[in-house]
Amino acid sequence: MAGNTIGTIFRVTTFGESHGAGLGCIIDGVPAGLALDEAKIQAALDRRKPGQSFAGQNNASVTSRKEDDKAEILSGVFEGKTEGTPIALVIRNTSQRSKDYGNLASSFRPGHADFTYFEKYGFRDYRGGGRASGRETAARVAAGEIARQVLCALFGDVRITAYTKRAAGISCGKIDLGAIEKNSLRAADIDAANAMNERIEELRRSGDSAGGIVECIVSGIPAGLGEPVFSKLDAEISRAVMSVGAVKGIEFGAGFGAADMTGSEDNDEMRLGGGAVKFSSNNAGGILGGISNGNEIVFRAAIKPVPSIFREQKTIRTDGSGFSETDLLIEGRHDVCLCPRIVPVIEAMAAITLADLALQNMAARI
Amino acid sequence: MAGNTIGTIFRVTTFGESHGAGLGCIIDGVPAGLALDEAKIQAALDRRKPGQSFAGQNNASVTSRKEDDKAEILSGVFEGKTEGTPIALVIRNTSQRSKDYGNLASSFRPGHADFTYFEKYGFRDYRGGGRASGRETAARVAAGEIARQVLCALFGDVRITAYTKRAAGISCGKIDLGAIEKNSLRAADIDAANAMNERIEELRRSGDSAGGIVECIVSGIPAGLGEPVFSKLDAEISRAVMSVGAVKGIEFGAGFGAADMTGSEDNDEMRLGGGAVKFSSNNAGGILGGISNGNEIVFRAAIKPVPSIFREQKTIRTDGSGFSETDLLIEGRHDVCLCPRIVPVIEAMAAITLADLALQNMAARI
Amino acid sequence: MAGNTIGTIFRVTTFGESHGAGLGCIIDGVPAGLALDEAKIQAALDRRKPGQSFAGQNNASVTSRKEDDKAEILSGVFEGKTEGTPIALVIRNTSQRSKDYGNLASSFRPGHADFTYFEKYGFRDYRGGGRASGRETAARVAAGEIARQVLCALFGDVRITAYTKRAAGISCGKIDLGAIEKNSLRAADIDAANAMNERIEELRRSGDSAGGIVECIVSGIPAGLGEPVFSKLDAEISRAVMSVGAVKGIEFGAGFGAADMTGSEDNDEMRLGGGAVKFSSNNAGGILGGISNGNEIVFRAAIKPVPSIFREQKTIRTDGSGFSETDLLIEGRHDVCLCPRIVPVIEAMAAITLADLALQNMAARI
Amino acid sequence: MAGNTIGTIFRVTTFGESHGAGLGCIIDGVPAGLALDEAKIQAALDRRKPGQSFAGQNNASVTSRKEDDKAEILSGVFEGKTEGTPIALVIRNTSQRSKDYGNLASSFRPGHADFTYFEKYGFRDYRGGGRASGRETAARVAAGEIARQVLCALFGDVRITAYTKRAAGISCGKIDLGAIEKNSLRAADIDAANAMNERIEELRRSGDSAGGIVECIVSGIPAGLGEPVFSKLDAEISRAVMSVGAVKGIEFGAGFGAADMTGSEDNDEMRLGGGAVKFSSNNAGGILGGISNGNEIVFRAAIKPVPSIFREQKTIRTDGSGFSETDLLIEGRHDVCLCPRIVPVIEAMAAITLADLALQNMAARI
Repeated sequence: MAGNTIGTIFRVTTFGESHGAGLGCIIDGVPAGLALDEAKIQAALDRRKPGQSFAGQNNASVTSRKEDDKAEILSGVFEGKTEGTPIALVIRNTSQRSKDYGNLASSFRPGHADFTYFEKYGFRDYRGGGRASGRETAARVAAGEIARQVLCALFGDVRITAYTKRAAGISCGKIDLGAIEKNSLRAADIDAANAMNERIEELRRSGDSAGGIVECIVSGIPAGLGEPVFSKLDAEISRAVMSVGAVKGIEFGAGFGAADMTGSEDNDEMRLGGGAVKFSSNNAGGILGGISNGNEIVFRAAIKPVPSIFREQKTIRTDGSGFSETDLLIEGRHDVCLCPRIVPVIEAMAAITLADLALQNMAARI
Repeated sequence: MAGNTIGTIFRVTTFGESHGAGLGCIIDGVPAGLALDEAKIQAALDRRKPGQSFAGQNNASVTSRKEDDKAEILSGVFEGKTEGTPIALVIRNTSQRSKDYGNLASSFRPGHADFTYFEKYGFRDYRGGGRASGRETAARVAAGEIARQVLCALFGDVRITAYTKRAAGISCGKIDLGAIEKNSLRAADIDAANAMNERIEELRRSGDSAGGIVECIVSGIPAGLGEPVFSKLDAEISRAVMSVGAVKGIEFGAGFGAADMTGSEDNDEMRLGGGAVKFSSNNAGGILGGISNGNEIVFRAAIKPVPSIFREQKTIRTDGSGFSETDLLIEGRHDVCLCPRIVPVIEAMAAITLADLALQNMAARI
Repeated sequence: MAGNTIGTIFRVTTFGESHGAGLGCIIDGVPAGLALDEAKIQAALDRRKPGQSFAGQNNASVTSRKEDDKAEILSGVFEGKTEGTPIALVIRNTSQRSKDYGNLASSFRPGHADFTYFEKYGFRDYRGGGRASGRETAARVAAGEIARQVLCALFGDVRITAYTKRAAGISCGKIDLGAIEKNSLRAADIDAANAMNERIEELRRSGDSAGGIVECIVSGIPAGLGEPVFSKLDAEISRAVMSVGAVKGIEFGAGFGAADMTGSEDNDEMRLGGGAVKFSSNNAGGILGGISNGNEIVFRAAIKPVPSIFREQKTIRTDGSGFSETDLLIEGRHDVCLCPRIVPVIEAMAAITLADLALQNMAARI
Repeated sequence: MAGNTIGTIFRVTTFGESHGAGLGCIIDGVPAGLALDEAKIQAALDRRKPGQSFAGQNNASVTSRKEDDKAEILSGVFEGKTEGTPIALVIRNTSQRSKDYGNLASSFRPGHADFTYFEKYGFRDYRGGGRASGRETAARVAAGEIARQVLCALFGDVRITAYTKRAAGISCGKIDLGAIEKNSLRAADIDAANAMNERIEELRRSGDSAGGIVECIVSGIPAGLGEPVFSKLDAEISRAVMSVGAVKGIEFGAGFGAADMTGSEDNDEMRLGGGAVKFSSNNAGGILGGISNGNEIVFRAAIKPVPSIFREQKTIRTDGSGFSETDLLIEGRHDVCLCPRIVPVIEAMAAITLADLALQNMAARI
């Protein structure tokens, strides 16, 4: 049952329900002596939280939940440095409008975890999705920022950048990483972002929602990270990213496109450039045999559309003694497309996985 | 460094290099009292091993390595029943044609793990890929069959069926599970299989190789399996399947297709049928919030083309003191498309993950 | 580095330094549906905390640190029942008299972890022992009470009772469990407790301290708990109890006394009584082959004397650049004998270990 | 149920029943590049195995089971160096006199695990104790030798020496490590060894058995090993040593003696000698706050007398449908005192634990 921990050396254990007293995590295994930049942890949380004036999101929803998402560190840091002891981090839930959710106490929302939690545990926390709420990802983002700082301390200039590559059926025409924080979709192409927004606004007006694809690019990781055979770098990143709600698929490098390639097209040839190893391409996504090859690590995640839509849906309900059919109309306010808010979460999961494998790798050779 | 174990309760630890004395695994956490069908373990291994006269595979390669892949169980079974103690299983390497690989001792094959193992460990076992060889999957298949028997003992008629959905750019036009073992590609459509074979033969003659997509369908799993939040059922299956060499992506249900759907299209509505819960569709792939919903579990894996091709490739080599450029022409014989041989491995990884989460779920409620 | 977690299914991860913002734990793997008695968690903490007017303890010390030790549960409980999600529990540090410890920032107290933390991490949190402070055990006690409630939910009337069997060289002459909470030493014999107190007062006046032996008796545990071969019940309890500061040894049943017994003296013979299995004695301490046999589980822990004494001691100090010798006189106030305060901690460690093995045992048979 | 693995980075998973096809282990997490001395692994096994003409042991028993205990390494070593991949090691059972044990198939031997295995699993492997047999420790000894080689590669001259400190009520009068391998009891005092033998022979003639105390001294371990708070060095060694059958207690340094000491007696004062840190004594047993302090690590284990005695004992039996009382007379041949054969096993458990914590410690600081 203990499914709330990720990592072997760099270990993150999260807790918290959407409308409980608070959420957070314990980050164990952070090496001692790291000069922790706490301001950047709060900055990472601010980047994830709702309430940013994003076009393509229901502004009412923005006002419906104003979370400060203020992180408090309770342990593990002394005189600005990590102690090598667990870092506990707590975020209070300041806005718990449980009454919004009362009408959903008995019905199972299609596309949500309501039914499966009920089946697994015999009852469920119906307050805003309980443990299955996207709110749980705030703790991941905080832990991810600490992981990023560990990676930079180990390897120097490590950059982990995710962006919305496609949303509502519209793809970025180019990849301009500088554009990502300049548009509400966190797309890497301003023109595509505008088109995405237009389509998403239409969907919102019709009470519907949109999905998309988020790509993550990691640079600065040396060759050698990843543990054969089950803890391969791509296997561990996949587990970490697939554990984020709404992610339905992941692919590395050429990914599903490799299925249609021939070996001569797919193989990345190798040469030397200035003494360094250079790959002619990156269809491998920076990973060979589950171990980083020094090239950029590139993967994409498929994000399903927001399941909370404003149309009557067929579903079932329970009065505790059994099931009966019902037609459900969800109220309240919700995002229309999760991509921009999932971007920092996916960066965090990549950072957590890489930090853990980087620390594991310290024992690779005698 | 201990990356060779998968599972929390049902734990599999594999060992073995391609051309060492042998390979195998320890399967710990198998409940006591299971009447183990050992013949089915051997049958599963026979289904995976090379040497089956598959069109679309280089027959010479078939003869190049005749492995009996005879599994010997050394422990954990007494009077035909599992004892609740570790089951150790060993497969001897009877054909170790190391000389075939001598010429690859210093050069790094593009698309293989040669370079990354060298970078990680400072040297590498160049005999047939060493630990990174596909041969390692034999142990997974044996463990997977035991996992499947555990699942059937727990839930009755659990069926785990993978097949080649697409290969060399050709897709199955229909899904006829009865056709899978009747064609060399393990496709679910005989006509498509013939077309795949034709194209694969062309590629083989030109010294090239092909990729594809394998789909896996699991029926008979009740609702409730999967542990929030990091050990979600889809997250754990993804880790398990992505840990198989040559797999470059995985998706569940609508998968990457969900990225282009709207919420009203993607949500699986719920109704009751004969008292049982029925879903109007299965875009979720049988998993909601990381927990099985009782529907079929459906996922697809992207298989990259075989990296061993018979064309001169640009790469680098080492004499131990540094790197230099070289042009490499691989000899020996190899499969052209991995899909049919990966099918049983993917079924095994699904079984291992499901058995572990099924046993974990026993402690879900008081 | 991630040494702050204990348990496989019932998993406890603690955090917190003596004088940081707070301490606590995440308890993962608590089955859903347990009607949690939160008042008993606070009662367990109150029983452990300083400030109880115990004779034999420095009253000034009692006043020196008045911790409320109020536990706040942040997650995992809904409508009075456990949700099957992580239970996070935080205890604020309300009294952080760091200035008391300033003079110890550079010197290593004999018998304390000051030197080893400095050697391991390169610097140390000198505020009241930091992570190595006994204060960390508050989180264990809270988790232990939850574990106890899980055990009672599983097995009915489980009783875990520890007491001071020996202190300052004086042993209990009898075992009267009813006396334990009626004397400041938590001894099971009032007369012995008075003699212990007298001797401890003498030691306190001379600036010295005392050690002792704590025995723990667990009744109500059925046969079958414990996992061969490394997770034996006695092995796991030993790890859990030895992880408590000041514990220098542990023994089960006849323990070290068994070293001088013959097989005919040591073997517990078996008979039936009213259909139930009865043992003629309990030299095994309720455990055979690492698995509970249904008899009472009995173990003893050796508690070293409090290392903080009020006599000048030879030690070394560092100015950051190297070591130099110094003579240290510790100030502030401290307990003289840890036994009474360690009693609830040892009960907690037994409960945590038993709950974990009880949940693991659910998957023992098919 | 997965209790057959020990270690986090240096991980050992053992398998095998007393009279199955074989036993062995997988050692995962051995760093790559270690020049493995395989001859020393066999030498360690030879030192543990029965058949050495030890006075004080039933010579008949010696002849009763002639095991070659030949270890075969199946993986993880290439060109004499560890590959960083799992090392699988198998020892065949060449002498499986199952018929000897047929008469014990239904009765539970007092002091053995027969009853608890039956209660846990619903049936048991009655062949020579099955998984609970001391034979399982052969795999530990092989893994321990590899761990010892890892420690020497990391720290230079690490010495792990255990010996019989007390047996049959007789203690060593001095500690002469040179004497250990020169007497059948592995005592550190030849005169004491002779007295022990005399007493043990008497016990054997009367069909009884003896217990004892084994002490282990480890030198060459630097300060800093051990992970707060649950993975303390002493906690992990305790778990490892207590997981060895027949061990009923463990103590470090002054151990239970510390219970009667005062703080001024127990504290090890510190001084500098030639720049190095010197402790005035070693009551701590080389561990402070769960972390090695650079002093010798010293612990003692209590060994219970062999439970197999040749006197009629009261016990119970089962015919599968229930229990009934019976009087049991054990036949066959057995050791009279386990101390000399447990000495190498305890050394192995110390080595395995130290190697794991040494590798974990590599990630302690940034």
